[in-house]
Amino acid sequence: MKYTIALIGIWFLSLSGWAQELSSPDGYFEMKFQLLPDGTPSYQLDYKGQTIIKTSKLGLELKEEKKSLLDNFKILDTETSTYNETWKPVWGEEAEITNHYNELLVKLQQEETESLLNIRFRLFDDGLGFRYEFPQQKNLTYFVIKEERTEFAMNGDHTAFWIPGDYDTQEYDYMETKLSEIRSHMKEAITPNASQQTFSDTGVQTSLMMKTDDGIYINLHEAALVDYSTMHLNLDDDTMTFQSWLTPDANGDKGYIQAPAHSPWRTIIVSDDARDILNSKLTLNLNEPSKIEDTSWIKPMKYVGVWWEMITGKSTWNYTDEFPSVKLGETDFENAKPNGKHAANTAHVKEYIDFAAENGFDGVLVEGWNVGWEDWFGKSKDDVFDFVTPYPDFDVEEIENYANSKGVQMIMHHETSSSVRNYERHMDTAYQFMNKYNYPAVKSGYVGDILPRGEYHYGQWLVNHYLYALKKAADYHIMVNAHEAVRPTGLSRTWPNLIGNESARGTEYQAFGGSKPNHVTVLPFTRLIGGPMDYTPGIFEMDISKLNPDNKSHLNATIANQLALYVTMYSPLQMAADLPENYRRFPDAFQFIKDVAVDWDKTEYLEAEPGDYITVARQAKGTNNWFVGNVNGVTPRTTNIKLDFLEKGKKYIATIYADAKDAHYKTNPQAYKITTKTVTSKSNLKLYSAPGGGFAISIIEKK
Amino acid sequence: MKYTIALIGIWFLSLSGWAQELSSPDGYFEMKFQLLPDGTPSYQLDYKGQTIIKTSKLGLELKEEKKSLLDNFKILDTETSTYNETWKPVWGEEAEITNHYNELLVKLQQEETESLLNIRFRLFDDGLGFRYEFPQQKNLTYFVIKEERTEFAMNGDHTAFWIPGDYDTQEYDYMETKLSEIRSHMKEAITPNASQQTFSDTGVQTSLMMKTDDGIYINLHEAALVDYSTMHLNLDDDTMTFQSWLTPDANGDKGYIQAPAHSPWRTIIVSDDARDILNSKLTLNLNEPSKIEDTSWIKPMKYVGVWWEMITGKSTWNYTDEFPSVKLGETDFENAKPNGKHAANTAHVKEYIDFAAENGFDGVLVEGWNVGWEDWFGKSKDDVFDFVTPYPDFDVEEIENYANSKGVQMIMHHETSSSVRNYERHMDTAYQFMNKYNYPAVKSGYVGDILPRGEYHYGQWLVNHYLYALKKAADYHIMVNAHEAVRPTGLSRTWPNLIGNESARGTEYQAFGGSKPNHVTVLPFTRLIGGPMDYTPGIFEMDISKLNPDNKSHLNATIANQLALYVTMYSPLQMAADLPENYRRFPDAFQFIKDVAVDWDKTEYLEAEPGDYITVARQAKGTNNWFVGNVNGVTPRTTNIKLDFLEKGKKYIATIYADAKDAHYKTNPQAYKITTKTVTSKSNLKLYSAPGGGFAISIIEKK
Repeated sequence: MKYTIALIGIWFLSLSGWAQELSSPDGYFEMKFQLLPDGTPSYQLDYKGQTIIKTSKLGLELKEEKKSLLDNFKILDTETSTYNETWKPVWGEEAEITNHYNELLVKLQQEETESLLNIRFRLFDDGLGFRYEFPQQKNLTYFVIKEERTEFAMNGDHTAFWIPGDYDTQEYDYMETKLSEIRSHMKEAITPNASQQTFSDTGVQTSLMMKTDDGIYINLHEAALVDYSTMHLNLDDDTMTFQSWLTPDANGDKGYIQAPAHSPWRTIIVSDDARDILNSKLTLNLNEPSKIEDTSWIKPMKYVGVWWEMITGKSTWNYTDEFPSVKLGETDFENAKPNGKHAANTAHVKEYIDFAAENGFDGVLVEGWNVGWEDWFGKSKDDVFDFVTPYPDFDVEEIENYANSKGVQMIMHHETSSSVRNYERHMDTAYQFMNKYNYPAVKSGYVGDILPRGEYHYGQWLVNHYLYALKKAADYHIMVNAHEAVRPTGLSRTWPNLIGNESARGTEYQAFGGSKPNHVTVLPFTRLIGGPMDYTPGIFEMDISKLNPDNKSHLNATIANQLALYVTMYSPLQMAADLPENYRRFPDAFQFIKDVAVDWDKTEYLEAEPGDYITVARQAKGTNNWFVGNVNGVTPRTTNIKLDFLEKGKKYIATIYADAKDAHYKTNPQAYKITTKTVTSKSNLKLYSAPGGGFAISIIEKK
Repeated sequence: MKYTIALIGIWFLSLSGWAQELSSPDGYFEMKFQLLPDGTPSYQLDYKGQTIIKTSKLGLELKEEKKSLLDNFKILDTETSTYNETWKPVWGEEAEITNHYNELLVKLQQEETESLLNIRFRLFDDGLGFRYEFPQQKNLTYFVIKEERTEFAMNGDHTAFWIPGDYDTQEYDYMETKLSEIRSHMKEAITPNASQQTFSDTGVQTSLMMKTDDGIYINLHEAALVDYSTMHLNLDDDTMTFQSWLTPDANGDKGYIQAPAHSPWRTIIVSDDARDILNSKLTLNLNEPSKIEDTSWIKPMKYVGVWWEMITGKSTWNYTDEFPSVKLGETDFENAKPNGKHAANTAHVKEYIDFAAENGFDGVLVEGWNVGWEDWFGKSKDDVFDFVTPYPDFDVEEIENYANSKGVQMIMHHETSSSVRNYERHMDTAYQFMNKYNYPAVKSGYVGDILPRGEYHYGQWLVNHYLYALKKAADYHIMVNAHEAVRPTGLSRTWPNLIGNESARGTEYQAFGGSKPNHVTVLPFTRLIGGPMDYTPGIFEMDISKLNPDNKSHLNATIANQLALYVTMYSPLQMAADLPENYRRFPDAFQFIKDVAVDWDKTEYLEAEPGDYITVARQAKGTNNWFVGNVNGVTPRTTNIKLDFLEKGKKYIATIYADAKDAHYKTNPQAYKITTKTVTSKSNLKLYSAPGGGFAISIIEKK
């Protein structure tokens, strides 16, 4: 009898294919790893008893097909472990972050080739991360990936918040559709861009945010994208299975690997509470600890800048209209006729420095300061900027001295025009120039198709470049805010001088025709999962034609919404992007921007629904003060907030910047009201948000 | 009557399409430029009354087809001028070079697009050069070349000395066939290479050497290849017309141009005397004068090196066999097990320094000195070398001090593995390292397919890189000898620190299976037209299995031939490439290598026939001494030399190193005899050359 039972037991085990199981620390998640009958590795993820990811295949197709890592595997060994630590980020939403997971390491060997492949799973209380590891081995040292074949099999036709998969840009408005509707909406979703390359009618980018009909929130992304190609997701809309789709190089290959090596982590964040998605530290926790020892030079900044007037077309980046083209070192700017609209001139910059100093801003960004803007765009120009030669009307030294005398720092601008080899050739002298003239941070840009031609913004070649620029910046004690670069994947834990990226549709698009009014209620669920965004909010004049009569764009937000963004759109780098004159028209509203912090000890997401609303409260670092922000989608609503995150027994002055009752992002965006009241941890607030509106609250400890 | 004559005259003029004519200074050449009826620009070249280039079209096809510069032109204006100067190169075959030409500048405008195109013709006594110029204009500022459409219509089925057109390599043995036979011989011509990309069954590289049935010699090449794609030639073997065929980029495009700009010069050197082809300074004359002001640090060098023993397989570049792969900065070489065959070790290098010092050599090259050789080849490895980290057994400082104490200089080696971005990232520190340790020159290499992947060795992207490396080297006072780079086009006039290239099939191929025994009688007519070649001759042991039993290669030359190369294969950089022990076996023959100069005041080509023989006499710079060299093809022959180039009334000691009567490149390569005699300008010498043989003579003024 015992013998029979044992046999039956073995039979059941073999039926299940020797499944390996892993639970999260709190037990709510269960992950199962299993080899399919043909030896294909697979996984499945359940959350609170529900299957979130159905049985999904894992593996990689190699260019050398005989060596593909797809099937015919056996399990050599497995190891389980647990990890639990807290660590302190240099800057962030929280002063301290808990990193607690159960890990399963599966060691596989392919029977025929004897190739070794490890897959490491880490299951947290907020989700799963897993990655491929290619151990040092005889058989596989150098290999080329043809395609990664990771699946994420969805268990239903979920609602998704998505942008088209694209090798070059993320600057799309988010679509909100069922998975089954991605295909029919793809054409509408692909709006024009300076550099774009879509690849599939059902291809989307990460992070991808979804909500099931049962109210489960699912987010797919990657963490620690280093020396690998960016992952997109391609949906098989018959089976509702997403497949990884890497970014190709100029030859169509998808990754050059030298073992020992590992892929980035593929991440699946899940909760029945949308706030947990925003709160998740899974992406950061999967990254390596900081490689920078002395981080004293890394400081969050609030800044203003000579920028919005060029974005709106009121001013120009270029100094002159006299030349059909520029040859650096040859074109004579000294004797050129200025076009009279060049904003990056010494006198105007000093005005910004004054404004920054008067209002407590840390820095001033100036775009258009350096020669080359006359023909920087759309020419595939190689030798486009040298990053060190100013226009005749920009006096670097005078500006440095003036800023210094006012206690303000200058922020550098390196638009590369995607001429990446040119940028690398100049990088040391460009960074040395920054050190010499006291620029602690640089905003870099990659507008246009990449040079070397044939490469894409998100391919392995460029992923390597962005990290090269970041590491070298660290050597020079320079902070980096990289626009149009690859979207972040938590690398700022390892390189905390990466204080920002754009890599999504930012405020500038409001001046390029406008963005959807609920855009900012989606971004934190998608783009910001991997890291902060330099969203450059704080626009008070929504009618762009008031800045430039030829630009009929309208900013689809209310002033209260713009204020709230300083809280809801987490970033250590925050710009008050509008022109000083517009702030001077609304000094009472502007006060919030002056007061709001940029670094935090604690964050509480009070309520959230992707596409609809986000309300968050944050405690300013090293203080007892709190800031609350709410951004709203198109449906007006009321929020009930309990201020129970405040310290018991203390009194605070709350200044509430809210939409007026008749405010509307389109028809009445500048209608707001400000109220002040004393509050405690027992207080409740009931606040109205208009369509495309929101509210912002400063809660200052009463001393 | 006058009226009628005038009308007839106008009619004839219009028939000829308003042909523009140009003669060479001596009148032997006549060039005619003419617009064809559809407005296509064309040219024709006659020499001594014979048509050499039949009516051939000119123009460029642009990616934006509507803007193509092919036809529909009218002549706006023409300008003629004459130029006559002499200039002194920093190093060369002659102390002084005459630059004398008649020039025709044709200014065209396309009727429909109004685009402007200039074509500049310079007609010398040895041939024609012409180039396209794209003036600054409203219509055409930035454009992309789809293909250049320059024709060279041959007037017969000439004999051609050719190698397959290839975007990545020139390391082929030359074929000698009729033009009509190129197609049928192409397959045989394409031998394997680490990096190759042929493109057409009738595509060939430049410079292309031809001989007509009438005994006219024609050479096609380009001069001043800067910021443009390398030109190959594709033969239409119905019409015997060559068409320019540029090297594509990763996308298939053939050139990104920003006006004002110009193409390289397309050159046609013609003579009824083969020696005039070798003597021609047309390529240099078409290049810009030197951009380096202080050239005191640029000095020709004779050198030995730790190299041939690795090429033959006797030793290794890599230090250890312990690692399947290397990760720079991580792999522990200090504790690795040396493979015992690593030649670049301190003790062995010192032996070479001693040998150099004993024998009057300027420098010692060492390959394999730096970490990374364990997996440098064939892996498409990005982060492959850092150019500054030596292996544990190579003591940079000790070697520097030792070389210095012996009056010998070290020559650096930068094998890039074609990982070009990696090289550029390290270039400043690599050059600084050279300055620090007193390396005045670097041999660079580009073995394998190019990274960025999809680019080719000869595309515009890499042409730009080679010049970038050269210019930066000039900043550091470093001389460059670039192997596997684009073949030279006279740029060493502008950048005289470019003291050498390989960019053809060099001596190393004799250890990779052998080269044709007449190879060195072709190279000066083909590869060397654009600049010197670091051919690395002087091999005394032809049986490679004596160095490495596993290598059965045989060097297809006699010792006398190897000595002659120091004279016939002009280069300011000359290597005595064999191992010291082989030189010690033949000290009497080696004496010639010790004596021969590397820089010259005068050169006299005494006789020449491509593929058969070259005999040349050169006067050593600043002396009254002469050196004569003869290299022979497969047919044994006798040369009669008149020493009338010697100074009248002076006596000289001539030491003649000749093939023995029974010498043969295959069966008896080491048989030579040395005779000494007193000679004067009235002396004649009658000398025998074996198959694959030759002779070398030092003629030293008797004091």
